[in-house]
Order: sequence, then C-alpha cells, then structure tokens
Amino acid sequence: MIILLKENANARQVDNLKKFLTNRGFDLHISEGTQHTLIGLIGDTSKLDIDLISSLDVVESVRRIQEPYKNANRKFHTADTVVDVGGAKIGGGHFMMIAGPCSVETHDQILSVAESVKASGANMLRGGAFKPRTSPYAFQGLHEKGIELLREAKKQTGLPIITEIMDINHLPLFEDVDVIQVGARNMQNFELLKELGQTRKPILLKRGLANTIEELLMSAEYIMAGGNEQVILCERGIRTFETATRNTLDLSAVPVLHKLTHLPVVVDPSHGTGVNDLVHPMALAAVAAGADGLIIEVHNDPPHALCDGKQSLTPEQFDHLAKAVRGILPFAAKEMTWE
Amino acid sequence: MIILLKENANARQVDNLKKFLTNRGFDLHISEGTQHTLIGLIGDTSKLDIDLISSLDVVESVRRIQEPYKNANRKFHTADTVVDVGGAKIGGGHFMMIAGPCSVETHDQILSVAESVKASGANMLRGGAFKPRTSPYAFQGLHEKGIELLREAKKQTGLPIITEIMDINHLPLFEDVDVIQVGARNMQNFELLKELGQTRKPILLKRGLANTIEELLMSAEYIMAGGNEQVILCERGIRTFETATRNTLDLSAVPVLHKLTHLPVVVDPSHGTGVNDLVHPMALAAVAAGADGLIIEVHNDPPHALCDGKQSLTPEQFDHLAKAVRGILPFAAKEMTWE
Amino acid sequence: MIILLKENANARQVDNLKKFLTNRGFDLHISEGTQHTLIGLIGDTSKLDIDLISSLDVVESVRRIQEPYKNANRKFHTADTVVDVGGAKIGGGHFMMIAGPCSVETHDQILSVAESVKASGANMLRGGAFKPRTSPYAFQGLHEKGIELLREAKKQTGLPIITEIMDINHLPLFEDVDVIQVGARNMQNFELLKELGQTRKPILLKRGLANTIEELLMSAEYIMAGGNEQVILCERGIRTFETATRNTLDLSAVPVLHKLTHLPVVVDPSHGTGVNDLVHPMALAAVAAGADGLIIEVHNDPPHALCDGKQSLTPEQFDHLAKAVRGILPFAAKEMTWE
Amino acid sequence: MIILLKENANARQVDNLKKFLTNRGFDLHISEGTQHTLIGLIGDTSKLDIDLISSLDVVESVRRIQEPYKNANRKFHTADTVVDVGGAKIGGGHFMMIAGPCSVETHDQILSVAESVKASGANMLRGGAFKPRTSPYAFQGLHEKGIELLREAKKQTGLPIITEIMDINHLPLFEDVDVIQVGARNMQNFELLKELGQTRKPILLKRGLANTIEELLMSAEYIMAGGNEQVILCERGIRTFETATRNTLDLSAVPVLHKLTHLPVVVDPSHGTGVNDLVHPMALAAVAAGADGLIIEVHNDPPHALCDGKQSLTPEQFDHLAKAVRGILPFAAKEMTWE
Repeated sequence: MIILLKENANARQVDNLKKFLTNRGFDLHISEGTQHTLIGLIGDTSKLDIDLISSLDVVESVRRIQEPYKNANRKFHTADTVVDVGGAKIGGGHFMMIAGPCSVETHDQILSVAESVKASGANMLRGGAFKPRTSPYAFQGLHEKGIELLREAKKQTGLPIITEIMDINHLPLFEDVDVIQVGARNMQNFELLKELGQTRKPILLKRGLANTIEELLMSAEYIMAGGNEQVILCERGIRTFETATRNTLDLSAVPVLHKLTHLPVVVDPSHGTGVNDLVHPMALAAVAAGADGLIIEVHNDPPHALCDGKQSLTPEQFDHLAKAVRGILPFAAKEMTWE
Repeated sequence: MIILLKENANARQVDNLKKFLTNRGFDLHISEGTQHTLIGLIGDTSKLDIDLISSLDVVESVRRIQEPYKNANRKFHTADTVVDVGGAKIGGGHFMMIAGPCSVETHDQILSVAESVKASGANMLRGGAFKPRTSPYAFQGLHEKGIELLREAKKQTGLPIITEIMDINHLPLFEDVDVIQVGARNMQNFELLKELGQTRKPILLKRGLANTIEELLMSAEYIMAGGNEQVILCERGIRTFETATRNTLDLSAVPVLHKLTHLPVVVDPSHGTGVNDLVHPMALAAVAAGADGLIIEVHNDPPHALCDGKQSLTPEQFDHLAKAVRGILPFAAKEMTWE
Repeated sequence: MIILLKENANARQVDNLKKFLTNRGFDLHISEGTQHTLIGLIGDTSKLDIDLISSLDVVESVRRIQEPYKNANRKFHTADTVVDVGGAKIGGGHFMMIAGPCSVETHDQILSVAESVKASGANMLRGGAFKPRTSPYAFQGLHEKGIELLREAKKQTGLPIITEIMDINHLPLFEDVDVIQVGARNMQNFELLKELGQTRKPILLKRGLANTIEELLMSAEYIMAGGNEQVILCERGIRTFETATRNTLDLSAVPVLHKLTHLPVVVDPSHGTGVNDLVHPMALAAVAAGADGLIIEVHNDPPHALCDGKQSLTPEQFDHLAKAVRGILPFAAKEMTWE
Repeated sequence: MIILLKENANARQVDNLKKFLTNRGFDLHISEGTQHTLIGLIGDTSKLDIDLISSLDVVESVRRIQEPYKNANRKFHTADTVVDVGGAKIGGGHFMMIAGPCSVETHDQILSVAESVKASGANMLRGGAFKPRTSPYAFQGLHEKGIELLREAKKQTGLPIITEIMDINHLPLFEDVDVIQVGARNMQNFELLKELGQTRKPILLKRGLANTIEELLMSAEYIMAGGNEQVILCERGIRTFETATRNTLDLSAVPVLHKLTHLPVVVDPSHGTGVNDLVHPMALAAVAAGADGLIIEVHNDPPHALCDGKQSLTPEQFDHLAKAVRGILPFAAKEMTWE
C-alpha cells in the first residue's frame, strides 16, 4: 500500500499516522519528494481498513498494491478451485451446465424440465423457490413447496439442485439443496454472506447489477473468511445505459476473474441479456471467453402454456445449445462429464 | 396497461391471453391495426405481473399507463405525507436536519457530536451501529453497544435517533430507535422490507446505487403494503462512470419523486459525493431542488483524532452549513422547528 | 407509431395534431379508453420526427413500432450486406481479420507489422495516422506521412488498409485508403457522417462510448441516406462504472445488431478491454457471439522498443490468436479467405 | 507523477525508461520496496504522455499527482476567469442568464422570445441554427438563415447571442455570433476544438454525455492551448441507467470544477433533465451549487403552436424562474447586471 501525503501535511498528524501503522506491524518506507511524501507499507495490508487511512486529514490518496482480498486471491492459491457437487465438478477444466426453469411451478413442470435438460446434458438443475421481485404484488415463488418439488426432481433424475436463498432464516429449508445461490440483489447483504460462510455448502454468488469485479471478490471473501471455501462466482450482467438488453453481460469479467482468483466462474446469459434469442450466442461467447459453467433458464412448453419466460429457452433450444457448447468446449480447454 | 401483440400472433394464444385478463376482472379494449393489435386494459393494473404478461409468446411489448405502485402513488394520495418523529417533522413543508457521525465510536464522541449538532439546529441524530463494509476485515460498528450509546445521546439531548438495520434478526435492538434506516445495499432486500412493513416505526429508505427511481418507489411499496405508511425516501447518489465523486448525486430525483409520490424525500450529500468540501454546496442545492430534509455526517474533532471521515464535516463546518440552509429554506417554502 | 394522449388533453390541440398527421399522409387509428386516448399511425413513420411529436402539450408519450432507420433495417433488406474490400470480404458468412499497430510510427515498423500479420492470416491492415487523444499534448499521429507509410505497406504486402478520419477536410488524403474508419468520439459528428455518405468507400463506424445500439444504427443511417451503402459497424466497448477494464465490451451488441440490421459487425477487443491479456479470450468470445470480423492491435517488438501499447499483442500472440480464431470460425458458420 | 514498476521488471528496460525520463528533463526519485519499485518524477508532467508510460512492459501503473491540464488549472491561475460578452459578464461572482428557443424557426418567433426573455432579465440569447439530431430525417435547423435571424434579434434587443457550431467549415458564418457553443456530441471533436483555439471568441463547451470532468477540462485545454483563454464550461447531464430524466444532471460537477479550474461554469437544466417541470427546481439547485450561469430553453406560445419543446419553458414560466434565481443569487455570492 502506498500512502500519498498532502502537501503541507501537519507534522504531528503525520507522526500519529506513522505510529499507528508501525503499531500494526508494518514496516514503513518513506520517500520524500519536493512537494509530496510517500509512505510505502510493507506487510500484509489485506486486513487494513483503506477507507480509514484515506480519510485522514494528512492523506491525499491511498493506492493498494496488494489486493484487499486474501482467501479468494490467486496469488496465494495458484491452483484453480474445483467444486465437486455430487460428482458434477466445476473449475480446473471441469465445465458445469446448470439448467432449469425460472420458477418452480408444479410437480409436472419441474420433473419434465429436469428430465429434458438432463437428457440434453445438463449436470445440475436450477429452479427458483424464493423469487426476488421488484413488485410486492408479483408472484414470489412457491417457497417450501418449491424446494420440496426440486427435491423430488433430484430424487428422480439424480441431478444435484441449486436454488436461491433470500433470508438467512430460511437456511434450514436448504438442507437438501446442493448449491445455495445468492442473487445479485443480495451480493452485498453482508449478514447473509457471513452466515453462509459458516455453512459448508457450495455457494453460487451472483455479481450485483452495479458492483465491480473487486466488490464481487470482496463478497466472496466474506463467505471464505468464515471458512467456506466453496464459492462459485457468477457474471449475470451489469446495469448500463443500453436498453436493447435487460442488462449488459460483461463477459470480460470472466478472464479478469480468472487472473485475480482461483474460484470458478459461471455465466448466466438468460438474466444477462433478458432476451430469448440472445441466450444461444452469448452462452457460446461465454464458453469462448473461458467460463467454467453456464446457468440457463429452460421452460417446458405444453401447448396451452400461458407463461414462458421471455428469456427462457424451450427444451429443444436448450438441446441445440448444449450440442453447440460441446462443440467449442475443447477450444476452451474444458470438459464435462455428461450424465 | 397497453399490450402490443406480435405480428402474426397465434390466434389461440391470443384468445388464452384475453381470457386470462378478463378472468382477472379487466375490461379489454381491442384496437386492430394493419399489422399490429393493441389490447388496452381497463381496471387496476398495479397488482398485475407485468413480467408475466411481457414474457408471453404473443406479446411484443407492454406499456404501463398506471404506475406499478399504489400506496406510494401521489395520484391516490395527493397530500404530502408528514412523518412526525417525536415532534421533529418532515414532509408537507416541514424540513428535517439529521446529523451525526458515520459510526458511533465512544460515549464521549457521540455525546459531543450530538450536543454540537443540536446547538447548530439539527433535529435528529444519526450514527452507525451496524456498518455495511465492502471488506469483511473492516470495522463493522459497535453493534448493540453502538445503539446503547445512541440511546444515551438521545436521553441527554432530546434528539430523536436514526440508525441502520442490516439484518431483520436485529430488530429487537431497535426498540428505542426512532427511525430505522435501510441502507442502499439493502434497498432490494425484500424480506427485510416486508418485515419492516409489519412495524409501525418510520423507515428511511435509501436508494440503491444502481436503482431507478421507480424501483425505489417499488421498495417503498413493499413496506407500505405491510401497513407501515411512514416511509422517508433518501437520494444518496448513484453509480456512474464519473470518478471525481464517489457517487453521482442525482438531485433531479427530488422533484421527480415529489411528482410521483407523497412521501418525503431526504438527500444525503455526504455519501452522495464522498468528499468533504462538496457537502456544503450540494446540501444547499438539495434544498433548492426541494428536498424535505438533509442527512449529514459530522464528526467531532479532538486534537489527536486519527480518523475523520473524508466526507464528514467538522462541527464548525456543520454550523456554517446549517446557517446557510436556514437562509434558503424560505425560498424552497420549507420551514423547520429549530430545537 | 402509437401516440398516447394525456388525460384531459385540449380538444383543439388534439385536432391540430390529427390534421398535422393526416396532412403528412398517415392513416390514423383512434382508440378511446376511459381515461386515455391512443392514436395509431399507419404509414412510413421512419422519417417522422418523434421528438417533435412527443414534445406536444397533448402528448403523454410516443412509442415507435417501426424502427427509426430504414436503409440499415433488416426488415427492408433481409440479406446480409457483404462488403468487398479488394477481395477481402466481410458479411454474409465472410470473416475479416484486421490487424496492425495503434499508430503508424516508422517505415520499418509498419512494414514489419504488415508482413507478420499477413503471414498470420490477417486480410486487412490497420494503423492510425490521425490519432484522437484526450490531451492536446499527446502524440497525435504522423498525419499525411502516416497515410503515406500505410500506402507503402499496402503496396508491399497487398493488404488493403483502414485508417481513421478525424476531419472532413482531410478526405482528399484518404484516396488510397480502402476503408475509412470513424472513431467512437465522432460517431455522432453528423456533418462528417453526411460527407462520408457522399463517398463510395466502405466506412467502418465505431460505436460511441455512451451510445446505444439504436443510435449506432441511426449514425449508419446518416451515411446510408447519402447513398453509401457500405457501412461496417464496430463494437468497441461502452463506458460503465467498472474500472477493471478500460471499457465494457458489450458483446450482446453483436447478435442484437444482427437481428436489427443487415450490415456486418466487427468487434475491437483491443480498445474494448484496454488490456493485453484480455484480447485473446474476448476475441474468441466475439467470434462465438457471431462477429463478422475482428480488429486487433499488433505491435512489432524490437528488443529495445520503449513503447508497446498496453492493449497490443505481439506478432507471436497475434499468430496464436489467429490460429485459435480459425479453430472456432466453423462453429460460427463463418469462413475467411486466408491470404 | 509516480510510476509503479512491475515485480521482476526487466532491468535493461527499466534503465531505458529512466534514461527516457531524464532526457526529458525530469528529476527521478527512486524508492525501492521489498517487492516493488516506485519512480517519482519531479518536473512539469502535464505534457508527458501518460498512456505511453503506462503501456510500457515494466510499468505496473502510473499515478498523476499533477493534473494533466495546465492552462485550465486553478493551481496555476488562482483567480476566477471572467468572460465579458458585450458587457454581460460571467465568472468571478458575475452571473449570466442565457435563454431562448431550442431552434430558431421564424423571424417573429425569435424576436418575440428575445424580447420576452430580455424583459425577464436574461442577458444573452440562445437559439439553434445548426441542430445535431440523432436521425438524418429530423429537422436540422435553418442554418445560415437561422444565424441571420439571431443577428436581427441581437440588433433589436441588444442581447448578445450564442449558437452551436457543428462543422469548422461553418466558422465564417459565426462572425457576428458572440459566443460559439460546442455541443456535447462534439466535446471530443479535437480538430474542431483546435480550430476554435485559433479564434478569439468565447467558447461555451458542453460536457459530453459519457465524459468525465477531467476529460471536459482536457477539451478546454485543447482550446486554450491554441491561445483562446475564454472558455465557459457547461454541465448538461450525463448518461446513466436512470430513465425518469433524459440525462442525469451532475450538479456535483459545479463545485468540483470550481476547485479544479478558474473557468466559469454554466448549467443547462433544460437538456440536463429533458422535462419541462424539472427545469425550475434544477435551475435553482444549480445556482445553490455555485453555478456561474444558466442556459434555459424558452419558447413562445402562440395559441395554435404545434411544437413546444418538452423541456422548454413558456415565457411566463421563465419569468417566474428568473425571479426565483434573483432571490437566491445573493446566497451564492453571485450577482448579475439585469439589462
């Protein structure tokens, strides 16, 4: 960490700062310019509060050289983390294909989708039981009943299941859930992250709509600081001025994350674009960019169905996509155990 | 609500849609163009799930004419909501000045700040006990002890107190807190909002960094749908590409909100700019734009203090600001009961 | 186009509006709801000034059904446009690989880069002669001399050349340039676009940092309205809050553009990310997303070179990339005539 | 400027860098840490190409301490620049009120608006003759005829006039124009800026939709580097995700600019919000934030007028606004010579 002091910084306050830092075990390396003084900190600064330092009267600015995350940092853990979910693996060259409906609706719906995505090669089933909705008047999911139905689908198909948690008090309901998803809106729900850090279940952590890649890693660090090392990161689009897509899928985040962290990275092109016919090309693009997995919305399509997510694929479309993904996986040096 | 059907929409599916809508009690007004068909819905659409409708195969797009919020909507509640917090009022011409430190640190600190901001004319005391921090390693507040110290400051000065909640399980600790703050990162923590809707305490709801004004109102609607009508909205900056300020304070939100809702609107120029010397001009600008209140970070300034928030004012600076605010309040048709 | 009138719209003004529209040859389809009236316009609205209509006192809002561009619109020109640049083709399944240095610096530099990128399979040479720079004090290119050097490289290698124009008065210098590039900062330099519409040279039009996909198409329309149909669109990143990359490369723009327009789409991952080691994965992702071409910065690497663009590839890295692109082109149903 | 070298930087290349810098006249201040080496540059770095330095293989990152602009920098020119336009002054406590129609349309229109805004206290007349429009099919202004009509209005009312230039070849038409406006879309049309730097007319430079405050100052620097010191900056909204307003008016830019530069700052709440009834509150907010002037769209309102800009004020609304501005000017330590 490099601290740039203000011109004409009060000498006593600078002294206080130096004492504060040496008391915390840092070696200081002072460099006096004609106008400015720099203090270089030698030691582990990942747990030093940068906001506190940069708010000091005598400090012009602070620049980290070390990243502010440690457990998630590839520098201290060079090998890829591989998360094993009942035999389905992600990370370290293992590719994971997660598919399923936006919401769990009925027994027949979830069973039918589960079987068809499995047949197409998915190795995990998704489905929302607790749905975060902008409006209090919108359908919010089947809750316990939804998880119950997912469990049945798991039993019948053997696919591990992933579903979203919205309140830490619901945790007991997630006992048979294989991967717990933290949604974009809860990426900085720090109390929730801390509690999940106490569990030993894999967590799929979605990037918030307005959150930087570094903030995503800091949220992963919250979970890992509690001892839960099995974090899967998920890029699902950020909010920009563009309105042709619901969000702007930031695929650059995939190679950036691979440089910074050893954690696996999944891409969600369904929420990332919000448009059905963009899912296929953006899913392939995600694989080409190096994603370790995909999470895709698939709905069943009975003749009279009223509702089919604008961004969901039909089972046929998903089957077509899964084949295309298989085609390019070798070019991305990934492979998958197709069930 | 106007539903634009796709060209060549499947007739049977269109029929299903019409039945679905009439079953929900809407009168339909069909308008057939040469290429497109429009369905106008007559009835209360605020509780209709727009995402469900717009995801239908036959639907090109949906446009609301009615706003999707009802309790927060000025159309159905034309008079300004006035929230009365132990005599300090906000809304309907009443201006509220909230001030205090970022974090509650010590007994002496919070007492000293409380007394000085009261002397300058603040009528509510703020102070963080639970602090949302990007890093798990940063100081996260004094928790129960922080609320305890706020309570003492309230007792001594008579100022009502406001502090942030981060987890619904902490609610019992907030019994003596006068206004509960929901931070920007929790604006769409819907489970938290629902629980707060069950309380009868005023809630100060901060706009999320990437949230639209309409989403802010939908989150207020979550609280109000539970029966808690005392919601104070807070603009505190949105995330943009500009880096000269920590956030971009969107002051246009103030008059936009005043058109759309009867709820009072507070501006937080401290977090909104993140820079000490921008607080004064932006606070005045907020008042000129019609804000019903301000929330300002003020720290005490003992000679050897190490930490002073980059965005905090000294008591002297706050006193100067409070005087300036008083000067222009009449031009904004607001008044304040200065304690 | 659907015009939603305000509640209680002044009857005479509504009448004026109706006359105005019928005088312009539109058939009107009026639909009176209980509160609102809709006017549907039947006819070619692409040349109707939507801002003028939406600014009327009686108008609540206006919604286009037709897109506001005509020449660029795939609806009126379903087949892909193929641009043929001296045998190198782009569009309609033809893939183009453009490569070269950020700036043309010396005879040896440009010749050396040209030969190496040609050997790796590029079929067009890029190189900046006029460089838009944020600072007036930064190197702004070799100007005429730069174009002269490009011409020599073209002569020697047979590669067609592309370079950026910044001022319409420079047009005479571009006589031997094969494709004229309009940079992101000039995407809405409408006077420049109009003049380029008068030429019959292919134009590569880069998307502005803050411009929507629709605005990009409107700028293409400016060129095409002048009779120049050879427009190549280029996604090169948009400006967002994320700072890990210089810009956020919006790859979704590729399939979105392919739906909306028949014009070919190129991706620039060098400017789009601003980081050398992100170029390879994002170039592959662009191909997988369906891009019709790539434009890549490549610098030569003499041992003592001082300057090598942070985002440029070495010739070896480019060779590696070109091979990888060739690998996945078939999966994107594209092919390329490798020189 | 502080240059942070990479770990394990190639020693010969570091040597090359040091020679390069000392050859340019800088004193170097080297500071070796355990892992990283810093080079501090002492000397005038405003003309050093930061992109070149940061692109070097051995450089991890570069941080400016000095701002990259010199002529516009308050550090080297502490007193406010006052621009005097035929007696109407702006800057240094002088407030300027610019008003007029979006487009010049007819003789009667511009004369009528000019007289009414003068009567209300405006001291400069605006009006578009060349109109940048997203669509090539939209009305683009009266061009020469428009400037001719502005000149007549100036003659009749004595108000100085301001209008926008879109192409440097039009410059001869601007001989009688008092202030030349550079629109947001041309803020980085560097060739235009350079030419305007050769004139000796005041330039009103609008901030681009996606441009940072620093980039605005760099564009001002382009003009000033040519010798034209009379630059007026204009905040007119930036592009964000929020859609309730056309742009997000970034009023924080006003005090930020006042810290960084001596140039006067005008705010355009008409384009900044795009909504008629937001103009009044945001204009007052701009004054409270310290703006040196306002630029407001005002249209005349003949009974049968078809078009009135959605964001324009009526003369009555402008008169009301001008009175309110007069009320709070003293609180902002500004004054105005009302004609």
